[in-house]
Amino acid sequence: MRLTRYTDYSLRLLMYLALKPDELCTIKEIAGHYKISENHLMKIAHQLGVAGDIETVRGRGGGLRLARPADAINVGAVARRAEQDSALVECFRPETNLCVLTPACVLKGVLGKAEERFYEELDTVTLADLVKPQQRLKKALAL
Amino acid sequence: MRLTRYTDYSLRLLMYLALKPDELCTIKEIAGHYKISENHLMKIAHQLGVAGDIETVRGRGGGLRLARPADAINVGAVARRAEQDSALVECFRPETNLCVLTPACVLKGVLGKAEERFYEELDTVTLADLVKPQQRLKKALAL
Repeated sequence: MRLTRYTDYSLRLLMYLALKPDELCTIKEIAGHYKISENHLMKIAHQLGVAGDIETVRGRGGGLRLARPADAINVGAVARRAEQDSALVECFRPETNLCVLTPACVLKGVLGKAEERFYEELDTVTLADLVKPQQRLKKALAL
Repeated sequence: MRLTRYTDYSLRLLMYLALKPDELCTIKEIAGHYKISENHLMKIAHQLGVAGDIETVRGRGGGLRLARPADAINVGAVARRAEQDSALVECFRPETNLCVLTPACVLKGVLGKAEERFYEELDTVTLADLVKPQQRLKKALAL
């Protein structure tokens, strides 16, 4: 089972901002600390902005910050949104599904229920929970 | 969230065999009914054989069949095995993991727990459950 890198990086970006709550952070800075691509983060920051999790302050000295408290950002909600274009198996994307079993399939329902269990577990966690070992995470990020 | 095509096809192959419990089925026949690649199914049949879920009868008139009753084949076990090389996110594959958060990360544990919830749901289902609408599935497969 795999999540997209998009989801992984979305959560990492939010964690970074949650660790620096009183500062504006740039994509360049975040990408540098994680040693990952700025381009990827730019698209992700845009989408997290659209969703209302982060906000951008423009201009010199500008940057990104959380748009709401970390304990109001639900990990399940972030992951569901980031994964919305992922199809668990072929039949979860009706436009391209060719599986002949589809009209009679029990497996599809079983897999859908299992996927829901996955997200329900994440629904119990907030961004604030993810950054609880604050000092250790800051050290890992060389902050 | 995505499962591999390998897992999807493994379950489809098992369902096919469970729908024809008293017959030997060939890869060619199964691939034809599902309209999918024989090559893919061959590798999958081999691995399901190694795992003891199916067996091959060699020679003229030979083919594949389930090696144990459908209600003794657990869907969770099949899926876990088929997905064993899939990493949920980067840090689930230590050999290539570059995420700097790893030594202090809470997210990894949270995601691991959610993944386990997914499989636990599948653990409640057997191959026999998947083929309960037998007549409708046979019709869908043109059997």
